[in-house]
Amino acid sequence: MPHLPLTTYYLPLTTYYLLLTMISFTCDYIEGAHPEILKRLVETNMVQVEGYGEDEFCEAARAKIRKATGCPAADVFFLVGGTQTNSTVIDAMLHRYEGVIAVDTGHIAVHESGAVEFSGHKVITLPGHNGKMEAAELRHYLEHFHGDPTWPHMVYPGMVYISFPTEYGTIYSRSELEAIKNVCEQYRIPLFIDGARLGYGLMSPAADVDLKALASLCDVFYIGGTKVGALCGEAVVFPRGNAPQHFFTMVKQHGALLAKGRVLGLQFDTLFTDNLYFNIARHAIDMAMELKSMLSAKGFEFYIDSPTNQQFPILTQAQVDSLNGKVAFEVWDQLPDGRYITRFATSWATPRANIEALGALL
Amino acid sequence: MPHLPLTTYYLPLTTYYLLLTMISFTCDYIEGAHPEILKRLVETNMVQVEGYGEDEFCEAARAKIRKATGCPAADVFFLVGGTQTNSTVIDAMLHRYEGVIAVDTGHIAVHESGAVEFSGHKVITLPGHNGKMEAAELRHYLEHFHGDPTWPHMVYPGMVYISFPTEYGTIYSRSELEAIKNVCEQYRIPLFIDGARLGYGLMSPAADVDLKALASLCDVFYIGGTKVGALCGEAVVFPRGNAPQHFFTMVKQHGALLAKGRVLGLQFDTLFTDNLYFNIARHAIDMAMELKSMLSAKGFEFYIDSPTNQQFPILTQAQVDSLNGKVAFEVWDQLPDGRYITRFATSWATPRANIEALGALL
Amino acid sequence: MPHLPLTTYYLPLTTYYLLLTMISFTCDYIEGAHPEILKRLVETNMVQVEGYGEDEFCEAARAKIRKATGCPAADVFFLVGGTQTNSTVIDAMLHRYEGVIAVDTGHIAVHESGAVEFSGHKVITLPGHNGKMEAAELRHYLEHFHGDPTWPHMVYPGMVYISFPTEYGTIYSRSELEAIKNVCEQYRIPLFIDGARLGYGLMSPAADVDLKALASLCDVFYIGGTKVGALCGEAVVFPRGNAPQHFFTMVKQHGALLAKGRVLGLQFDTLFTDNLYFNIARHAIDMAMELKSMLSAKGFEFYIDSPTNQQFPILTQAQVDSLNGKVAFEVWDQLPDGRYITRFATSWATPRANIEALGALL
Amino acid sequence: MPHLPLTTYYLPLTTYYLLLTMISFTCDYIEGAHPEILKRLVETNMVQVEGYGEDEFCEAARAKIRKATGCPAADVFFLVGGTQTNSTVIDAMLHRYEGVIAVDTGHIAVHESGAVEFSGHKVITLPGHNGKMEAAELRHYLEHFHGDPTWPHMVYPGMVYISFPTEYGTIYSRSELEAIKNVCEQYRIPLFIDGARLGYGLMSPAADVDLKALASLCDVFYIGGTKVGALCGEAVVFPRGNAPQHFFTMVKQHGALLAKGRVLGLQFDTLFTDNLYFNIARHAIDMAMELKSMLSAKGFEFYIDSPTNQQFPILTQAQVDSLNGKVAFEVWDQLPDGRYITRFATSWATPRANIEALGALL
Repeated sequence: MPHLPLTTYYLPLTTYYLLLTMISFTCDYIEGAHPEILKRLVETNMVQVEGYGEDEFCEAARAKIRKATGCPAADVFFLVGGTQTNSTVIDAMLHRYEGVIAVDTGHIAVHESGAVEFSGHKVITLPGHNGKMEAAELRHYLEHFHGDPTWPHMVYPGMVYISFPTEYGTIYSRSELEAIKNVCEQYRIPLFIDGARLGYGLMSPAADVDLKALASLCDVFYIGGTKVGALCGEAVVFPRGNAPQHFFTMVKQHGALLAKGRVLGLQFDTLFTDNLYFNIARHAIDMAMELKSMLSAKGFEFYIDSPTNQQFPILTQAQVDSLNGKVAFEVWDQLPDGRYITRFATSWATPRANIEALGALL
Repeated sequence: MPHLPLTTYYLPLTTYYLLLTMISFTCDYIEGAHPEILKRLVETNMVQVEGYGEDEFCEAARAKIRKATGCPAADVFFLVGGTQTNSTVIDAMLHRYEGVIAVDTGHIAVHESGAVEFSGHKVITLPGHNGKMEAAELRHYLEHFHGDPTWPHMVYPGMVYISFPTEYGTIYSRSELEAIKNVCEQYRIPLFIDGARLGYGLMSPAADVDLKALASLCDVFYIGGTKVGALCGEAVVFPRGNAPQHFFTMVKQHGALLAKGRVLGLQFDTLFTDNLYFNIARHAIDMAMELKSMLSAKGFEFYIDSPTNQQFPILTQAQVDSLNGKVAFEVWDQLPDGRYITRFATSWATPRANIEALGALL
Repeated sequence: MPHLPLTTYYLPLTTYYLLLTMISFTCDYIEGAHPEILKRLVETNMVQVEGYGEDEFCEAARAKIRKATGCPAADVFFLVGGTQTNSTVIDAMLHRYEGVIAVDTGHIAVHESGAVEFSGHKVITLPGHNGKMEAAELRHYLEHFHGDPTWPHMVYPGMVYISFPTEYGTIYSRSELEAIKNVCEQYRIPLFIDGARLGYGLMSPAADVDLKALASLCDVFYIGGTKVGALCGEAVVFPRGNAPQHFFTMVKQHGALLAKGRVLGLQFDTLFTDNLYFNIARHAIDMAMELKSMLSAKGFEFYIDSPTNQQFPILTQAQVDSLNGKVAFEVWDQLPDGRYITRFATSWATPRANIEALGALL
Repeated sequence: MPHLPLTTYYLPLTTYYLLLTMISFTCDYIEGAHPEILKRLVETNMVQVEGYGEDEFCEAARAKIRKATGCPAADVFFLVGGTQTNSTVIDAMLHRYEGVIAVDTGHIAVHESGAVEFSGHKVITLPGHNGKMEAAELRHYLEHFHGDPTWPHMVYPGMVYISFPTEYGTIYSRSELEAIKNVCEQYRIPLFIDGARLGYGLMSPAADVDLKALASLCDVFYIGGTKVGALCGEAVVFPRGNAPQHFFTMVKQHGALLAKGRVLGLQFDTLFTDNLYFNIARHAIDMAMELKSMLSAKGFEFYIDSPTNQQFPILTQAQVDSLNGKVAFEVWDQLPDGRYITRFATSWATPRANIEALGALL
């Protein structure tokens, strides 16, 4: 990765859709749902069930998630989308006088329209390192803050938020997670892992944690459905039955309670049957690695060495032009030399043919 | 309707599910979606589209809704659920120092876990009359409040919220709507109509407004999908293109922005194709009227004379017992004489056989 | 008191200042501070002390308040004004999913510009009876709410708020307070007493509680300074050392932390030296009782039989006119017969001559 | 100033009070009020006036402030304290979807317990340069944000907040203010100047703006009273009569409305009579410059070259010890070489003798 004088801290993601194309790598939520999910929605459509997540499909999904996470006592809730889940979980777990610590490129810090602040809480930012938080910097912050209990004029740090994978496609190693978890435990602050793309992180060849390990290393996390095969839905897991009291009511207060909870339950029940969630996530990773290899072989540089389904190749204007009308992707930023940092995302739905077609064009 | 000394102002809805039954009338969201919706979800599943409501399905749905409402300049947004839609629309349209006026039995006043207050706004309550607001009482409140601009120590009334139909299944007549609208215009306060069950209201034999008339009589309303055939989704309509600036961002801030907006767009596109929304709503009303006739013929009294899909027959303990394990419904309250106010809801999915089966048991 | 068909629920207090007069009974905060307070402010002015309530004057005031309330372990905080104190205490003690129960005429329900809702909490209203809450109605509400833990779609009642005296000058008897406290304890909900005019309540001839009794009958209350002799300031008392954790930080977050806390501490230190607070409050009550006797002797009716410093005589238009330009007071409402409900307030600063002058005019 | 590897971004201000001393430089709010203020409080104490800022003292103060600022149409409001004023003004001027831009060391970003976020708004931080914002960096941020209106997933920048002087005692030059104002005007974003220590900034020998110039260069600012001679109070000025509609009600909603507004009005009336505000501020600056000269002459280094009443000399452990029990000041941070960054503040109340006594000890 080149050392770029990019001020990504300032820059919103600029989106550059090349529309009217045949192939799109713009994101991992451009298709509908995995066909198995639609099949089961059709099959169960006329079964009459209770609302608000009290139905049999949600119960079945909870049981399977408890098993898959190795957390038999876990509290599991199904919410609809990522920003909604982040702001609801954070608000529900923080005291009024607390904020949440995140890296400055974290989704909650930049791309959620201020949803966390909307619920009254500050996002306290630490520097991100390719999207990741460093345990040592977290410890340094908490040491200094907690070192002076006589100075109560600041927001108290009440939660640590990280993403797995991060906004930049990077993932934490087990030892990095343990280091952050240790700091959190020392200061008695819960650790929240945003897993909007969790499957893509866990199936990365670079991952040295599995779902059970990840569940054991945090206080709350969610299993992203929207970006990993579902129409919508995020499964929030409190691994040790440690959901805040009346979390259900706070979910409703946040506008995050789905009347037909069955829609979420059934999707997660399907995703956690026969390992579907992981199988389709692995496919996305396989496609991303093929894309990466193909581009590397052609001499492309990458902005970040991502081991997951988001790849950030650097393209010249000519190369961008050559894809115009044929392949869609996102342009994130421009380098001083005029080249573009782009993002190509694969997903459970990406056919190998799309990678090959892209290769043929470059 | 008997004159009951019920203090419904105090009483939360107590829910009494008779589980393990074959037939349920507990609500209008106990099944999945209308089969045509599932069919189209399957057909369009692999089409690659943009997220956040910028896709072609949303655009098509918007066009059809603009036509059906007779509002070619309407702003149309698709949100996920009812409480979420209420709190987002209300917060987006109110100034910081304003509250929203509703009747004391209104959904936002009682059954939304304080979602409106969560966003900082007071729900100012007027007495409900079978769930409805009276224009004269609204005028009286506004006259007194606005009559003294030197008393700025109170919450300013910044919006009027009514439901069509109400929580009690009742609907406003055209003249009642016009009277409320006139008061709102006089005081320059927008009128918001919660249409979570809009189809069931408009298809009632008692309705003397259609969708176009309703759209012309308010400043914002929503067309409920969740309870009228969709898996989820509410279509917010600002009839004269009068959406607040940056409403999209406020939707996101409220956690109400669906990444795969296509899921909402496609459902409303389907519902507004070939009059499907109204056809299936009329079926629910037909079933409700059959249920009402059947019960009336058997001598049952009703708590409220509802012309829509929610019916409120009064049952004795023996009658409740006789349905035990066979028919599910909600018990809302107990009368001083020991009888129960119950709710039986029909929907687009209610088969006539269910009405007949219920009749055979009573 | 006549039985008036007044809809005070709807009516904001209309204020009718008769300006340019010699004598004012419009409120109990129309003068500055008791002279003893000013004397001590001058004496201590150049003493250098710490800010934010950590100074020696605050400490001295805390010690005296702990003694006067009979609560040696009490946490005592000094805030600036009443609305600010109400919203800060309520927000600090409630969980996110909770609201506060008050009567519909309570200050927080009507006259605080939505400050409680601004911090995200619903004010749940019960009917007021001359401004007071009835324990039986409170129990009824809590029974029904708590009777159905399966219905988590409503705001949880998390605190009971009453005023002593109320907006209508009335006070609770010991047995009434005990009854409310018993209900609160049964449902494990804290009881908060707004004592903006506490001195005037406790010094009423009708009072059968003193400060120690009152402190023992609630979980938090405040001793009003602004209306009882101070320039500003309310002393919040958590009688059993039961302040919420980090209350100081929440006070700051609410903008309620005074940098020069000495100004508040010194005032309460003065007020609680040599019984000053109660002595000056008794004077106000003496003046109110003289005013009441004088008006009664002249045949005036009263809207409410208030035993405290606010009196609510009913005046004809001619009587209102006769005072024009000579005596100022508030007009709260108009009766159907055209007469006016007025408010005359006395305070620590009211000279007997003002009562006599008023009498001479009527 | 040495180039220090200090991570002040992380560090809360650690406070190190050397108590039981004779002389304190810990802050500029350790004494009461200027004697002239107390004198007038005593003189006017028994005058009966209206509450909530509608009194004659407030009116007189407003007139004098309008004259002193050269803004005859200015809206002037009196609030109680700095954090309260910041959060109220910011919340009142921002739309729901907007945040406020400040430097990362700004008071609202660090030392207000999250009061801005409490009202739902994000503090967007830019790097501070000795506490100041650079116009070029502001422009860069706004260019990038505003450059892509198709990306509505972020908080909109709705206000720019700067302090005069800053947390580090530094002040903006006229050209720096004009540059920031130009950027704000280009992007139609209001500029808010926090003047908690405004007098000390304007009276600095380095200042090339006066009060009129400052008022012309922003959209709202406040004249700090608490730190410049008052018991409490901040005068918010909207120079062109541009207060948000119903600002009064929002002040009340924020708990920032003082019942006895006279206390604030009288203080500002006094401060703006016979140039008192500026005269006493100049005295503080004179004392600070003497302290600075004295320390410089003795060879002390300074962390920042401050031209106002806060000075930041660097002391060794031995020097800190030598002052123990005799002079109080704040220790802000420790340098890698073990020395301490300290803060010595002068005020309107600092006698020259204190500077001399300090000099004698070092």
